[in-house]
Amino acid sequence: MVLPRDYADINCSIARALEIVGDRWTIMILRDALVGHTRFDQFLTSLGVARNVLAERLSRLTDEGILQRVPYQQRPVRHEYRVTDKGRALWPALIALLEWGDRYHAPDGPPRRITHAGCGSSIELRMFCPTCQTTVNPDAIDTQPGPGSATTPDIAVTRVG
Amino acid sequence: MVLPRDYADINCSIARALEIVGDRWTIMILRDALVGHTRFDQFLTSLGVARNVLAERLSRLTDEGILQRVPYQQRPVRHEYRVTDKGRALWPALIALLEWGDRYHAPDGPPRRITHAGCGSSIELRMFCPTCQTTVNPDAIDTQPGPGSATTPDIAVTRVG
Repeated sequence: MVLPRDYADINCSIARALEIVGDRWTIMILRDALVGHTRFDQFLTSLGVARNVLAERLSRLTDEGILQRVPYQQRPVRHEYRVTDKGRALWPALIALLEWGDRYHAPDGPPRRITHAGCGSSIELRMFCPTCQTTVNPDAIDTQPGPGSATTPDIAVTRVG
Repeated sequence: MVLPRDYADINCSIARALEIVGDRWTIMILRDALVGHTRFDQFLTSLGVARNVLAERLSRLTDEGILQRVPYQQRPVRHEYRVTDKGRALWPALIALLEWGDRYHAPDGPPRRITHAGCGSSIELRMFCPTCQTTVNPDAIDTQPGPGSATTPDIAVTRVG
């Protein structure tokens, strides 16, 4: 039932993702960027974060290709930060955290709805099985080694839930 | 287009979730717990984490009702940590991070598959619109104030994406 360590050798996509975005300020900056903030001072005002912390996180997010730094003014040159496709691909992670926070830590109801632009309905995150064409409950999840598991070939199929 | 700050007054479910699980070791411990680890020494071996760090995170996760501490032996008393429903409700967040890590940071392919116990297919996380009965792309997402947004009543409907 027990899996071998794989954080030390970093052969885990969760660990890799956390190395890049596993920091609270980073996630909050990304949230702001996804809802339309682009400029340094906007992030600064919205988050109440220290300038040096914000600068460091924006630089990291830009280096990782999650934000793109683009000039929006020439004299003097000013830059803004736009979310890339790689950044937008983190929407599910943010919605997952939001849904969990809404469910367990929002006594007054959800502070913010994430909606479908087409119709205004609240978006739901679903764990979907493409073979059975059904939503999968958290107690019906297994985990198995994938094609990139070469460094841990001895992992057996593991039933979890 | 710009939203007022809401991290300082913590009226954001993402921020609330991050206050509880927004720590890399916490997420990695949760990952291990979800794939079947229950005992202190199992987490210790799997993660290569310092004992005091592990003890502190397990205590926090137990206090928050994400893990439950249960005796499994009487003389001497030994405890194990079992994932609660509140903990299993974090599966989507972990799958979202895993899918993102697989997509952008797994050159040799996914190290681990998350599968449907019924059929063995890889589970996909989908942003779903229950009204349109369709999957929503990251560029078709809006955000709007929800019922619990009382402290930030001046937020207008915001188009993002």
